[in-house]
Amino acid sequence: MLYGKTNPHGGDIYEKRIAIDFSENTNPFGTPERVKDAVRCAVDDMCHYPDPYARELVKAISEHEEVDSSDLLIGNGAAELIYSYVRAVSPKKVLELGPTFSEYREASENAGAEVDTYILSEDNEFTLTEDFSGYLKGKQYDVIFLCNPNNPTGKLIDKDLILNILDCAKEDNTRVFLDECFVSLSEDAYTMKDYLDSYPNLFILRAFTKDYALAGVRLGYCMTGDHALLKKMSDTVQGWNVSVLAQAAGLAALKEDEFLENSRKEIFREKEWMKNELEKLGFKVFSSKANYLLFKGDEALSAVLKEKGILIRDCRNYRGLGPGFYRIGIKDRARNTVLLEELERINRIG
Amino acid sequence: MLYGKTNPHGGDIYEKRIAIDFSENTNPFGTPERVKDAVRCAVDDMCHYPDPYARELVKAISEHEEVDSSDLLIGNGAAELIYSYVRAVSPKKVLELGPTFSEYREASENAGAEVDTYILSEDNEFTLTEDFSGYLKGKQYDVIFLCNPNNPTGKLIDKDLILNILDCAKEDNTRVFLDECFVSLSEDAYTMKDYLDSYPNLFILRAFTKDYALAGVRLGYCMTGDHALLKKMSDTVQGWNVSVLAQAAGLAALKEDEFLENSRKEIFREKEWMKNELEKLGFKVFSSKANYLLFKGDEALSAVLKEKGILIRDCRNYRGLGPGFYRIGIKDRARNTVLLEELERINRIG
Repeated sequence: MLYGKTNPHGGDIYEKRIAIDFSENTNPFGTPERVKDAVRCAVDDMCHYPDPYARELVKAISEHEEVDSSDLLIGNGAAELIYSYVRAVSPKKVLELGPTFSEYREASENAGAEVDTYILSEDNEFTLTEDFSGYLKGKQYDVIFLCNPNNPTGKLIDKDLILNILDCAKEDNTRVFLDECFVSLSEDAYTMKDYLDSYPNLFILRAFTKDYALAGVRLGYCMTGDHALLKKMSDTVQGWNVSVLAQAAGLAALKEDEFLENSRKEIFREKEWMKNELEKLGFKVFSSKANYLLFKGDEALSAVLKEKGILIRDCRNYRGLGPGFYRIGIKDRARNTVLLEELERINRIG
Repeated sequence: MLYGKTNPHGGDIYEKRIAIDFSENTNPFGTPERVKDAVRCAVDDMCHYPDPYARELVKAISEHEEVDSSDLLIGNGAAELIYSYVRAVSPKKVLELGPTFSEYREASENAGAEVDTYILSEDNEFTLTEDFSGYLKGKQYDVIFLCNPNNPTGKLIDKDLILNILDCAKEDNTRVFLDECFVSLSEDAYTMKDYLDSYPNLFILRAFTKDYALAGVRLGYCMTGDHALLKKMSDTVQGWNVSVLAQAAGLAALKEDEFLENSRKEIFREKEWMKNELEKLGFKVFSSKANYLLFKGDEALSAVLKEKGILIRDCRNYRGLGPGFYRIGIKDRARNTVLLEELERINRIG
């Protein structure tokens, strides 16, 4: 028996020999070479305990984000920070969107919270609309989880709507957990980090995972003006949660602005192309601002592709979706073409 | 402001330029070269999410320990497993020894437990004796934390005493958390892993940290026959808690039996020598079966050494100890000599 999540995500390439993994939605251009070099160098330091305060990395993120270092906390991947957040807040009742990343719910339930789901409508492509503010009236949630752009839909939330939600939430003593892990690889995206002072109820989650293809290293951080919360979160985890190798990777990654900018351009171009090509093949494709696309196809599609060594994210276990929904991370042209050719072949056979 | 433990451990070499760190008690011969090579190779895979079930590593540990894989759970360092254990057990009242590793208390308190300390007597060198069984009668603890050999004393618990404690605990519905992280680098040490079936209340903690000098990688595991507990522990953390690099390091480390055996021999020889030399310098040194020594000296000793770039573990923040207690990890002859020479110089001046 192997212990782990019963509601798995994408990216599990270890079960079977997988040639191309479209279920991951990280930067398709891989880890920057200089980041790899930095980690290889850090191998000589892995005999030592990590800096428990991540002094250098906190300073570097603070400078990079132009956010005060006391607004920052580092984690063993963004996912750990979701767990330490709900431990520290200890909410009774929280709200998630449907569909969205399932760890908000899993972590909240594990911390003893009741989780409501606000189901987004397929009719307007799962976009969060102003109706949401109305829905919130009188609901008294302890935490509202938002993901911008949302995963797996790639939909941005209108900035005025977020500000409106933050205002309502502030009045209701509700916290807003805003997952911005995909913000850097998205089109027309924006961050809410400039509002940390105005809204102490605002908590922003970020990861190195997606931007610099560092999913295997485990490195994330969060930003909030609520310093007591960060202290409490830090107390819920061991002192050495972020490895020597992850700290080295993070420091090197923050110097890769050009790599990130180039990646974005390529991803945006490929995404448009992929959307068109998938539509030509008869799939319903939802427009997306992020580095991944949600589309609808045959219920057996992911199983058939897996036989061919291609992994796509079967989204049937997302609340608000069901069988036939799939998410693909955008890759480079060569790999995208492999997927399209395989889909065309499957279409032909039947 | 930097968030982290207010009750720090050793190994924090990042505050000031440290030349030799005796405050760490990991394998002084460093990370085996083949383990470093394996991690450097794994750098190319760090763009992928880690195997959430750590399939290969669980299998390898299972074979290495000759323990069923369903008795095993992997963690982001042994320290993470202490936190997930107390989350899963949710104890009301626990017992720790004094002195011992402080994370049992910190994790327990953070999970809402009341923590009692059973103070060990300096008169018999902080050894746990049969009196302990008497003390336990009628106490109804949910968890008893034991560390064998104990940290920072290096004292082994008599095996018959552990069996007696396990029997009493089983009757009282008490769990026994047994930290065996130092067992492989200790003399005359033994593991209780053969008793997992007989005592489902037994939980054994292990780390790669000490044996293979992998403190910076974060990799630990635990063993228990209580499978429901392991499932619950796994639910309290994110699915990707153990990095790609840590999994690769662990797989390579398990092949290093010869390195470990050679390390042990050297450590045992150096430890005896260091004990004698420290005694010659007038320090009271406690006999230790582990790869570290507890001794008594001037209250300012660690501060004076730090000025010289030498870090030793000031043990004043251990319950049951106080100012003037120090722990040093045993190093190789060259580095041990540097410490001794510095101590001699301080003795001469002061």
